[in-house]
Amino acid sequence: MRELSIYNTLSRKKEVFIPLHLPHVGMYVCGPTVYGDPHLGHARSAITFDVLFRLLQNLGYKVRYVRNITDVGHLQHDADEGEDKIAARAQLEQLEPMEIAQKYTERYHDMMRELNVLPPSIEPRASGHIIEQIALIEQILAAGYAYVNEGNVYFDIERYEQDHHYGTLSGRLVEDLQANTRALDGQESKKNPLDFALWKKASPQHIMRWPSPWGEGFPGWHLECSAMGMKYLGEEFDIHGGGMDLLFPHHECEIAQCVAAKGKPTVRYWMHNNMVTRNGQKMGKSLGNFITLQELFTGEHESLDQAYAPMTVRFFILQAHYRSTLDFSNEALQAAAKGLERLQNAWQLLEHLTPNPQNRFEVETYENRCWEALCNDLNTPIALSVLFELAHEIESATRGAVQMDAETIKRLQSLFDTVLGDVLGLRKTKQEASNSEALDVAMRLLLEYRAEAKARKDFATSDRIRDALKAAGIEVQDGKEGATWKLS
Amino acid sequence: MRELSIYNTLSRKKEVFIPLHLPHVGMYVCGPTVYGDPHLGHARSAITFDVLFRLLQNLGYKVRYVRNITDVGHLQHDADEGEDKIAARAQLEQLEPMEIAQKYTERYHDMMRELNVLPPSIEPRASGHIIEQIALIEQILAAGYAYVNEGNVYFDIERYEQDHHYGTLSGRLVEDLQANTRALDGQESKKNPLDFALWKKASPQHIMRWPSPWGEGFPGWHLECSAMGMKYLGEEFDIHGGGMDLLFPHHECEIAQCVAAKGKPTVRYWMHNNMVTRNGQKMGKSLGNFITLQELFTGEHESLDQAYAPMTVRFFILQAHYRSTLDFSNEALQAAAKGLERLQNAWQLLEHLTPNPQNRFEVETYENRCWEALCNDLNTPIALSVLFELAHEIESATRGAVQMDAETIKRLQSLFDTVLGDVLGLRKTKQEASNSEALDVAMRLLLEYRAEAKARKDFATSDRIRDALKAAGIEVQDGKEGATWKLS
Repeated sequence: MRELSIYNTLSRKKEVFIPLHLPHVGMYVCGPTVYGDPHLGHARSAITFDVLFRLLQNLGYKVRYVRNITDVGHLQHDADEGEDKIAARAQLEQLEPMEIAQKYTERYHDMMRELNVLPPSIEPRASGHIIEQIALIEQILAAGYAYVNEGNVYFDIERYEQDHHYGTLSGRLVEDLQANTRALDGQESKKNPLDFALWKKASPQHIMRWPSPWGEGFPGWHLECSAMGMKYLGEEFDIHGGGMDLLFPHHECEIAQCVAAKGKPTVRYWMHNNMVTRNGQKMGKSLGNFITLQELFTGEHESLDQAYAPMTVRFFILQAHYRSTLDFSNEALQAAAKGLERLQNAWQLLEHLTPNPQNRFEVETYENRCWEALCNDLNTPIALSVLFELAHEIESATRGAVQMDAETIKRLQSLFDTVLGDVLGLRKTKQEASNSEALDVAMRLLLEYRAEAKARKDFATSDRIRDALKAAGIEVQDGKEGATWKLS
Repeated sequence: MRELSIYNTLSRKKEVFIPLHLPHVGMYVCGPTVYGDPHLGHARSAITFDVLFRLLQNLGYKVRYVRNITDVGHLQHDADEGEDKIAARAQLEQLEPMEIAQKYTERYHDMMRELNVLPPSIEPRASGHIIEQIALIEQILAAGYAYVNEGNVYFDIERYEQDHHYGTLSGRLVEDLQANTRALDGQESKKNPLDFALWKKASPQHIMRWPSPWGEGFPGWHLECSAMGMKYLGEEFDIHGGGMDLLFPHHECEIAQCVAAKGKPTVRYWMHNNMVTRNGQKMGKSLGNFITLQELFTGEHESLDQAYAPMTVRFFILQAHYRSTLDFSNEALQAAAKGLERLQNAWQLLEHLTPNPQNRFEVETYENRCWEALCNDLNTPIALSVLFELAHEIESATRGAVQMDAETIKRLQSLFDTVLGDVLGLRKTKQEASNSEALDVAMRLLLEYRAEAKARKDFATSDRIRDALKAAGIEVQDGKEGATWKLS
């Protein structure tokens, strides 16, 4: 098995990936909070870890990939107080919170399908794991790292600091954090402003509520990932991923919860994808400067010069390394569309190349460079640059300027299929969706040509066209006002 | 609002539908147990209630449609003993039960999308509602209609019969049922063989398990629908649907559970779709004579003469009334394909009809007959037969044998769009999927024609073709070995 290195946020360096239970890999990634249309930021996180999922499988690992749906507990401003994001949206749209969750889960799935993001092995919902979350709170309480106050349960940072260290992932220090935190309204029931909610008491008007040993309420946002990660991947597992905006406090709190409950950390490799920016500022729902995927695919947004195909968006994301920021601009997306087209073109040209027995082309170094890039902390831009070099060679081969034999062509096809197709998840051609209009125009032209043939009594030609089309499932009907066609 | 009648299994007659909270309608339908590929039986139930969902919305109701996913508790042979269907499958495929549930939920969603079945408003999972199920058991226990034995909780039929009547839906009598039931192995912990499990103790090797007041275990199958129905639709709601095979014992037990817990029945209208049969025998997973939807769509099954398009399958199902059995045969599906094609053809012809100011066609009676059929307990075959009559008239109109003015044509278009499209959920044309091959052939012929034009130095024609294709997104590239094309 080829060696894979990944950057571990925990150690702040690249490490060789060694799974706990070869050949199995357990991987958890924070999924969406389903209260709005998915945007470019969602796409970046999903695509980054989709490529990791695909790469691991391609290297021969058996991966259990868990990506959750947050449908409860994520409060506005990512805070411990305020309205639940989904409930607030439900009020706005006059729907039951679970209708909102359903609607935006559907939207998310639709967009992921467009982007060719594979479904995870398990997609647990936070609201479906209240029992597991309550059990985890009970363990943290039993270990002494949490306290109950007026129907709420809070994680006790000061107590935790006596035995462990809060801040291992983010490198932040509790004393610094405390110096920078002011007491907020509504946080009176906390001993310390840094403490975070494990369980929140539901106010009378709060719809999403469950019974618990502390009264009716709902779980804190950080809790679900700890509970569901351990449920489906065990108390120790390989990889936890998510966007860099989740590093602190979300993932820091996850670590504290697991250490408090189990005495040891759960996750071995923490991975974070960087943000999508717009004019240098993070793109996000809370900032209001985001562009939804739907808008990108249709071009319906004032900042967009045109529509961008899902594969263009995927390619745009993969052209940057996942740990770099990615700045949105029309120019960058248009360049991505051109770049992708060139690779797809080369990929298709391979099917039609005439082999030359006088091979002058050595494919192996390219193969190695591709895989080395992918296995070097998912360096997708380098892998793509190698494929661009190959595209140039393939184009030269079509002009006879480079000689490739059948074996070389086959290996190149396999490399494009595997790296560009299977691992990077790009499709070989434009999607079917655009076929319809093209077919209309092609058929219109073809029927004109057939009408001309008939006009000059060349019935052999007109019949040949009709029969060939019929065999391909297109039925031509001759009528008073000319011929019409339909798919049969 | 047009009056809608539906057959209520509870009263065994057609009743005028009057919702509890006009204009809102609450509707619950039993969804799939996600442990295998969806088959024709799943399609029939989903399509039947999809049409009801679409019709209600079209009539102006605001519908909350809940369709569940059974991912725990449904034991083999639909019994109280034996292995959990999903866990058994997980063992077979060496996966965690939730990976099985995820895999087959995905498959189900994929097939529903193909069949143009709309997603429900809420799609709750049984495993995600353990707390609600435990709470319901506690209410039934508190009311005295259940008992605990060795970590199991059973519904007490004899005790229930003292105050209520078990069998209101199926018309079965407890004394008859008891006479026909023999004590089964492993049922020793029940007082009476008719009693059914509300909570089952988990054996040590059972993976899907949750803590409860009665020890670790899992909920009985009948419980989830009662708990989730009431959670999302209230203690009294309008419609509960499902396949006729679920009428007894599943729905009968649901009624008993709700009456036991709340003192009154929950559901006002019970609706059941009849079975798909094959040579007169019920088609089902447990009988091993089923054909999966995937097999139908690809034609890959020894009993299939050919592949059938999803819309053909949908049409085939709608050609029978939902309360009649529907016998599968290649002949019937082939006839459905022809029938659908004729309607789709007429639907498309409407776009090209030349209006004749001397209108001789009265559309209103047809409109009324269509809607009356749909509102008469979803009589889809009658509605379709009216559309067939119209197809005949439209075909005559293209030959000038029937005169329709612009207003009539517009009304016909609206009728086809609404009834055939919006309510029956049939698509106007064959799906995009088949466009690809057709486009290949059309382009091949067109490029031949263009090559001929070039050969005779008719560059005006060859350029015109190239430019028209380019405008439609098809790029033609001239090379040494002739022209190639790609979507741009």
